[in-house]
Amino acid sequence: MTEVAILGYGVVGSGTVEVLEKNAARISKNAGQRVNVKSILEIRDFPDSPHKDKFVKTFEEIENDDDISVVAEVIGGVDLALDYTRRCLKAGKSVVTSNKEIVAKHGYELLKLAGENGVNYLFEASVGGGIPVVRPIAQCISANRINEIYGILNGTTNYILSEMTKKGTEFEDALKDAQQKGYAEADPTADIEGHDACRKICILSSLAFGHHIYPEQVPTRGITAITAEDMNFAAELGYKIKLLGRSRAIGDKVAAYVGPHLISQDNLLSHVDGVMNGVVIRGNAVGDVMFYGAGAGKLPTASAVAADIIDAVKHRYARKLIGWGEGGEEYAADPMQLESAWYIRTNVDREKVRREFGDVIFAEGAFDTKSTIAFKTGYMSGNIIKDLIDREIPALSLFRILGDY
Amino acid sequence: MTEVAILGYGVVGSGTVEVLEKNAARISKNAGQRVNVKSILEIRDFPDSPHKDKFVKTFEEIENDDDISVVAEVIGGVDLALDYTRRCLKAGKSVVTSNKEIVAKHGYELLKLAGENGVNYLFEASVGGGIPVVRPIAQCISANRINEIYGILNGTTNYILSEMTKKGTEFEDALKDAQQKGYAEADPTADIEGHDACRKICILSSLAFGHHIYPEQVPTRGITAITAEDMNFAAELGYKIKLLGRSRAIGDKVAAYVGPHLISQDNLLSHVDGVMNGVVIRGNAVGDVMFYGAGAGKLPTASAVAADIIDAVKHRYARKLIGWGEGGEEYAADPMQLESAWYIRTNVDREKVRREFGDVIFAEGAFDTKSTIAFKTGYMSGNIIKDLIDREIPALSLFRILGDY
Repeated sequence: MTEVAILGYGVVGSGTVEVLEKNAARISKNAGQRVNVKSILEIRDFPDSPHKDKFVKTFEEIENDDDISVVAEVIGGVDLALDYTRRCLKAGKSVVTSNKEIVAKHGYELLKLAGENGVNYLFEASVGGGIPVVRPIAQCISANRINEIYGILNGTTNYILSEMTKKGTEFEDALKDAQQKGYAEADPTADIEGHDACRKICILSSLAFGHHIYPEQVPTRGITAITAEDMNFAAELGYKIKLLGRSRAIGDKVAAYVGPHLISQDNLLSHVDGVMNGVVIRGNAVGDVMFYGAGAGKLPTASAVAADIIDAVKHRYARKLIGWGEGGEEYAADPMQLESAWYIRTNVDREKVRREFGDVIFAEGAFDTKSTIAFKTGYMSGNIIKDLIDREIPALSLFRILGDY
Repeated sequence: MTEVAILGYGVVGSGTVEVLEKNAARISKNAGQRVNVKSILEIRDFPDSPHKDKFVKTFEEIENDDDISVVAEVIGGVDLALDYTRRCLKAGKSVVTSNKEIVAKHGYELLKLAGENGVNYLFEASVGGGIPVVRPIAQCISANRINEIYGILNGTTNYILSEMTKKGTEFEDALKDAQQKGYAEADPTADIEGHDACRKICILSSLAFGHHIYPEQVPTRGITAITAEDMNFAAELGYKIKLLGRSRAIGDKVAAYVGPHLISQDNLLSHVDGVMNGVVIRGNAVGDVMFYGAGAGKLPTASAVAADIIDAVKHRYARKLIGWGEGGEEYAADPMQLESAWYIRTNVDREKVRREFGDVIFAEGAFDTKSTIAFKTGYMSGNIIKDLIDREIPALSLFRILGDY
């Protein structure tokens, strides 16, 4: 039997306890032994919980308990979580986490620390909720050189954009609707400004390309500037607008960024709607592979935490080879050098656009804004498009179009 | 360094050698050591191949070579492949394969034999080409009870159906087109009659539910009876027609079958077009997770074979826990007891349909066959619908509609 501890009894923590209990038989079978939750660290009281005897108020009770060999850190945030994770690893306990912020910011350090202490640090639940994506990158596609990763990594923003597409509403209204339905938090900044997607593309990039990419190395734009008119123009041109995290190897460097993209309706990713996530890996042998499912939610995320617990139990004496090397300033390439086609919404006249961009494809006539037009350009780098925009064609919106670039 | 042998230098065999060579650096890193192809069994001559020194003409040269610890069986078929696989396992060599027929028919026996000899038998490439699906079921979703698996498992039939949908052509014309383009074989029986999909759902079922399901336990219908008119009616009702393999746990038993389904255009799987595959796993915690990618092809399939080779190298002395128990006659449940909504195309009149089925939704008016109508029923089991059809409403087409059942 393996004794585990859960740090934090919020949504994911309580879900993890629920999954471990509900699927105990299958989990015992897959782990090769019984997995028992011995302690739950939580400052709140749960006097009516069937697990009330397991709650402890101080981290030290878990840190000093030699019976506990696997700890699930599902506190969130960085300060406490980082301190506890370090101390667990140093105490010879494997740690599994759903905390994307800590993995994106401190993954390299914590993976190294786990290695030094002969234990595992696993984080399947930190990207894509319950969708298996971390382990497939590390293992299943291990015979491929990965050229690119991109995906819809945040369910809240995808819900908002899907609603805007479906109902023609503006961003603010769709956000309010998402908040009422519980898909967006009262303070939605981390989601709508793209920070959450940024953390996830950091983790995926680090894993796929071998060295740590940090959030501050990833230019990030959210969805707040997207208008109902953009959605309409995009549809007219045959596209949907989605927030993507993307990352691409360029020589020995990696260029990663987060921003809105137009995706052709021929691309399966454009049909990933609502709160769902979809992650595409482009390997040099396998081509494009996509993983799809609920990117958040209590039980989906808990199921990934529980799968990592099983893995930590099975690999107690044989470390999993999931991790990456040190990053650095030099490692991050500027995504502005990447070429793509672009979507531009502007109120300058067609003839001027034609002089600058040649024979581009126009969409027009949405709503009552007859003076606004949208068009798509040929392939050009971010630097060139920025120069053109700054100089001649003031853009109301400027988004990349997803394609082979 | 690990020495491997390749049995068969056809499409997948030569692709495997290519991937092992092209991605040697990454593969060495992931396997923890260099992986070298020492021998290739092939009766044909390849005098101009850069690998010509590696070709051997008799299996015994590989069987008796103690340097070789991993063998990739990519011959296909059963007779020779089964004999060679058994002998490799008995000789203490791990075997990896892309051969779905052998895994579907003899998986239990070969997995047992591998266990008895302390080696691995791995088969990621046997389902979904390069898409990681076998390992995610075994590992990543290990904390879930899996309730159901379904998917588009055959690229040839999916290409044919996609073309029929897009161009309005009849089956025979779409098949000819697929043959001309190299997506269908000269003898397309195994694909179009559903046998290939049947083998794959056998493998997925066995893995997900724990005991061997054999092809003869899986009622199988292919796509030959689907008409352009069906496609049209389905579109009018909001659906696409796809060939699915499906498998569901019913108590301690498993009901599996293969057949055409109508899929709502709200379901992501309906947008999996062309030669692509999509496999959906429904777990009791994670919900629906989908894996998508090229289900066949030289390099995608080879990349899965190579990933298994890496895994066999890494786990030479620690067996992977991928496998299942014995099956049996009692283990297979009859899929006819499963309820679903149904699509029926018929030439009896509306009033008669209404008397039998109530207020169903009609589609009509396709082409010149004004006397034909299509409708969808409420939920009912296969047994009940069959009885109704036999008794009162002769059906020109009868397909299940995918939904929660």
